[in-house]
Amino acid sequence: MSSFNAHDIARAAKNAFQEAQLIPSSERVEALHQIREALEASKAEILLANEDDLKAAEYEVRAGNMSATLLKRLDLNRGDKWDSMLQGILDVAALPDPTGNVSYASELDEDLELYRVACPIGVLLVIFEARPEVVVNIASLAIKSGNAAILKGGKESNRTTTMLAKAISAGLSKTSIPELYIQAIQTRAEVSSLLQLDQYIDLVIPRGSNSLVKNIQNNTRIPVMGHADGLCSVFIDEHADVTKAIRVVLDSKIDYPAACNASENLILHEAVVQTVWPPVAKALLDANVKLLCDPPSLNAIKHLLPTPSNYESLVSPSEPSAYDTEHLDLILSVIVLPSVGSAIQFINSHSSHHTDSIITESEAVASIFCRGVDSAGTFVNASTRFADGFRYGFGTEVGISTGRIHARGPVGLDGLVTYKYMMRSKAPSGHVVGEFGTGKKQYKHKHLSATAVPFLQ
Amino acid sequence: MSSFNAHDIARAAKNAFQEAQLIPSSERVEALHQIREALEASKAEILLANEDDLKAAEYEVRAGNMSATLLKRLDLNRGDKWDSMLQGILDVAALPDPTGNVSYASELDEDLELYRVACPIGVLLVIFEARPEVVVNIASLAIKSGNAAILKGGKESNRTTTMLAKAISAGLSKTSIPELYIQAIQTRAEVSSLLQLDQYIDLVIPRGSNSLVKNIQNNTRIPVMGHADGLCSVFIDEHADVTKAIRVVLDSKIDYPAACNASENLILHEAVVQTVWPPVAKALLDANVKLLCDPPSLNAIKHLLPTPSNYESLVSPSEPSAYDTEHLDLILSVIVLPSVGSAIQFINSHSSHHTDSIITESEAVASIFCRGVDSAGTFVNASTRFADGFRYGFGTEVGISTGRIHARGPVGLDGLVTYKYMMRSKAPSGHVVGEFGTGKKQYKHKHLSATAVPFLQ
Repeated sequence: MSSFNAHDIARAAKNAFQEAQLIPSSERVEALHQIREALEASKAEILLANEDDLKAAEYEVRAGNMSATLLKRLDLNRGDKWDSMLQGILDVAALPDPTGNVSYASELDEDLELYRVACPIGVLLVIFEARPEVVVNIASLAIKSGNAAILKGGKESNRTTTMLAKAISAGLSKTSIPELYIQAIQTRAEVSSLLQLDQYIDLVIPRGSNSLVKNIQNNTRIPVMGHADGLCSVFIDEHADVTKAIRVVLDSKIDYPAACNASENLILHEAVVQTVWPPVAKALLDANVKLLCDPPSLNAIKHLLPTPSNYESLVSPSEPSAYDTEHLDLILSVIVLPSVGSAIQFINSHSSHHTDSIITESEAVASIFCRGVDSAGTFVNASTRFADGFRYGFGTEVGISTGRIHARGPVGLDGLVTYKYMMRSKAPSGHVVGEFGTGKKQYKHKHLSATAVPFLQ
Repeated sequence: MSSFNAHDIARAAKNAFQEAQLIPSSERVEALHQIREALEASKAEILLANEDDLKAAEYEVRAGNMSATLLKRLDLNRGDKWDSMLQGILDVAALPDPTGNVSYASELDEDLELYRVACPIGVLLVIFEARPEVVVNIASLAIKSGNAAILKGGKESNRTTTMLAKAISAGLSKTSIPELYIQAIQTRAEVSSLLQLDQYIDLVIPRGSNSLVKNIQNNTRIPVMGHADGLCSVFIDEHADVTKAIRVVLDSKIDYPAACNASENLILHEAVVQTVWPPVAKALLDANVKLLCDPPSLNAIKHLLPTPSNYESLVSPSEPSAYDTEHLDLILSVIVLPSVGSAIQFINSHSSHHTDSIITESEAVASIFCRGVDSAGTFVNASTRFADGFRYGFGTEVGISTGRIHARGPVGLDGLVTYKYMMRSKAPSGHVVGEFGTGKKQYKHKHLSATAVPFLQ
């Protein structure tokens, strides 16, 4: 694709965003219902396109160029995926409007009011994997929050994506929201061109590999919100309860090992190496988890190894690189450290600032851990797997941010809004700053308890 | 400077930040008081270094390489600058702690609580002009908000900056906050190296020219918070009151023309060209403001031009580029448009999304303007010059952001914090996600009204 196309797409998105600013939020909810109906009406042709994607993908799987997992994700007709995709639209429609809320209001002077009010960001560029239902999910979140979006799914789902985007436009055409509010693009070349257009695009949200995210960050001035890695840890403190340790470590590792919030590192306080660690290790080995151990943690479980025999194949000495590896599998790297302080240092250097958990009965140590660990989530006696937008109560999530700016951790609709300041003078001759200063008027800065801007209609 | 140095500086800053996470916020306030005393104790040597900077600068001014304005800004002993710099430290110390506040709290399950709590961002890299007092101002804000900072002032102030940074470290050394919490660097080469170190530096705040900001955005993966331009507009609506129009337009233009929140464009609704515009133009001309006019606005004030004679020299036809120019001077670009809709479109294409104001008596039109104009500040019958951290009631400001992500408009201490999620299970055997799901436990997601995390000490 030429960069001319990208320019047109981006400008159309910005225009659509700006036009839609005056449309009431009830119309955005109506648009979601219309989109759901348009998708239902086009179900046959969408699934036909999906079958074409699947056929092409099956060929690639046979040729050894694609994994069977990727193939499964492509299938929009698998199980209840179609229905839950449509239900997801209604769920998003029912969430509270993230725009319009006032987070700061102040009377600067008599008849001069200032409001900080939540508003959409603008144009989002979202890049994601070959999972066609994500097109609908992200489009719903964008519309609900008042943002225009340009969507790029994995190329293996291009035919399905095109048909989904067509149905979304058809739904939008029944409302006053511009049809080009949601656009789908197909190629990496288009993404590269779009990344240069910071005059039109306000936020890039890449979902995918660490290398995808870094590559995007290196090639754009546009802010990027995403997560590079999910390298989470559990620390078993000297004051740990053994039952909690077993349950939380096990759940953090085995509930869904391929998830970014699964744990990859287990840190043991040296005081628990002979006490809590052996039963935790036994539970992990029973669940077929491979343990990469440093010498002290390995020594402490040597007595477990002879019986049953498969334990031996599951335990091996760790290489230093083990503690910087996102295994995404039934593998856990184990290290013994002398204190909560050294555990915090270790986590801050090796974890990806995603989510880290401590097992402790000491409130003082829990407090030190939660303050000292520089991650989006710091948990006490709870599985790292809780780090998720749905579990946090956001209804859904755009993704998980391991950045620190704007939004951190699971990002719900709140992460898709920013704010602007609105100020109104009701004074008979308006307000000017020249009236204030030494020997003149002074600012009142009196807190106003407003939840919405009173003069917005 | 070698990149080795930059690496050491950045790593030291990150270490200092992480060590300081466990230090109570009262110690940060104490540090500000200690820094104030250390500066007072070193006043003589700091002013001596400042004299050296001034002598070098005077030489450059004589050689025609530097403006006299820049020279004035360098002088730390001018008027009450020294005293107000020290008072500024106390002002920042007295502001409310921006960290620790809970913005979201939810009971996910019995005995499982989630808190979203404000916390520092990490390591800031702040690049600013040759105004030595800014070193102290930014250091105060960074310390108060719990962030470590690396500061780079304009090279003309290097000698003063070095001595100020020395005194700041001396102040910190009397507290438990690491001395390397605040570091000053001297060269652009060091900045370039630091911009590559996204593993250590979390936010870059450039204060300066548009080209400085763009250049930094092009050369780093680290998020950048800054403002590129200050191209503000005033729109005189058809429902405008003439007194308000005169006062607000005049104040927006002449109160401080070199400020980023001064207005550069004046947009006239075509209905006011023969009514409100001539007296507004007269007031501007009386204040010696040069008007760059489109044909309709020029025609409407032609009758003013013959007398007094200097009016004629102040009015000229506008070039198209006039409406994209930040004059920073007593110059105003004037254009006539047919509606509030076209005014909004014009502002969204030509303004820098900083601050724009409407003069109108219509609440409906004010609402349309404030929603439709995509700027950090949208004002009604008030001067654009109100867009300022002090006037907004933030006590002080780090800068003004024309970006949309994280912080927008005047950025106070709130803009220097992010948040993290803390979760605690008080259940007898901890909490795991495997307990939840179809046929199992369901999430409660019950709102908790907490203002602080109860288990933090």
